[in-house]
Amino acid sequence: MSDAKARPSHVGQACAFCHIIRDEETASIAFKDSLSLAFLDHRPLFPGHCLLVPRKHYEILADLPASLVGPLFQNAQLLERAMEEGLPADGTFVAINNRVSCVPHVHIHLVPRRRKDGLKGFFWPRQRYQDEAALRQAQNTLRAAIAKFQSRL
Amino acid sequence: MSDAKARPSHVGQACAFCHIIRDEETASIAFKDSLSLAFLDHRPLFPGHCLLVPRKHYEILADLPASLVGPLFQNAQLLERAMEEGLPADGTFVAINNRVSCVPHVHIHLVPRRRKDGLKGFFWPRQRYQDEAALRQAQNTLRAAIAKFQSRL
Repeated sequence: MSDAKARPSHVGQACAFCHIIRDEETASIAFKDSLSLAFLDHRPLFPGHCLLVPRKHYEILADLPASLVGPLFQNAQLLERAMEEGLPADGTFVAINNRVSCVPHVHIHLVPRRRKDGLKGFFWPRQRYQDEAALRQAQNTLRAAIAKFQSRL
Repeated sequence: MSDAKARPSHVGQACAFCHIIRDEETASIAFKDSLSLAFLDHRPLFPGHCLLVPRKHYEILADLPASLVGPLFQNAQLLERAMEEGLPADGTFVAINNRVSCVPHVHIHLVPRRRKDGLKGFFWPRQRYQDEAALRQAQNTLRAAIAKFQSRL
């Protein structure tokens, strides 16, 4: 992937996170470097819940150029360690919504977790595949789509 | 970070995901390469829900060596695109639990999302900081912990 996926500046002008990045809107910054910024979510799951965003406007995780993926998630690792030891927290929850239920500027939620913090049922409701055929269908569809993308690389 | 964080093999022997990786337990593999494996979660949030795991046993995201972070999340990008175009899906939810509520072998949940799929209220309950002081305290604690880690690098 190339930087071609970075949106034209007029898109960024309407983006709430780009406003924060350009210092046009205040946020409680926890971390910044040349490629990213982390600020407190103002409606946290738990205190310390941060959003880590690349400075450039990319809509979804898949749009990030390869050169940015490693450094951005290494910053997520740094925040994760800082939460565990600093807040402190027993662990963390790291999450990214792509396209559905989110601001369209890729952001990594980093949420401090504690045992028995009430989010035990967070990853629910789970379901089961109706039968073996339904499972195989999902598997084969994904494998075919992955092969298609790999053939383009 | 170095590979020193990879757990000794006796830990991996008891790990459900290591069993799958070593082909000692069956799973519905959707993707594999030299460093990672993705298989269908047998109790999905939605059909196609995959777990992407590194072949080496690392407990949490922060334990992954820097050399693995980029390649692993580039594979997550590939799966994300495959879900969107292949299943198809309107978007994806990407999530990692570290230490709390999870198998202790780092795994990236990749969940296909559709608009109005019922997970609208997924990222809840949110709260608010009690007051400005509580917010500043969370911010400053994190900044101090991050600075501490950065000074070690």
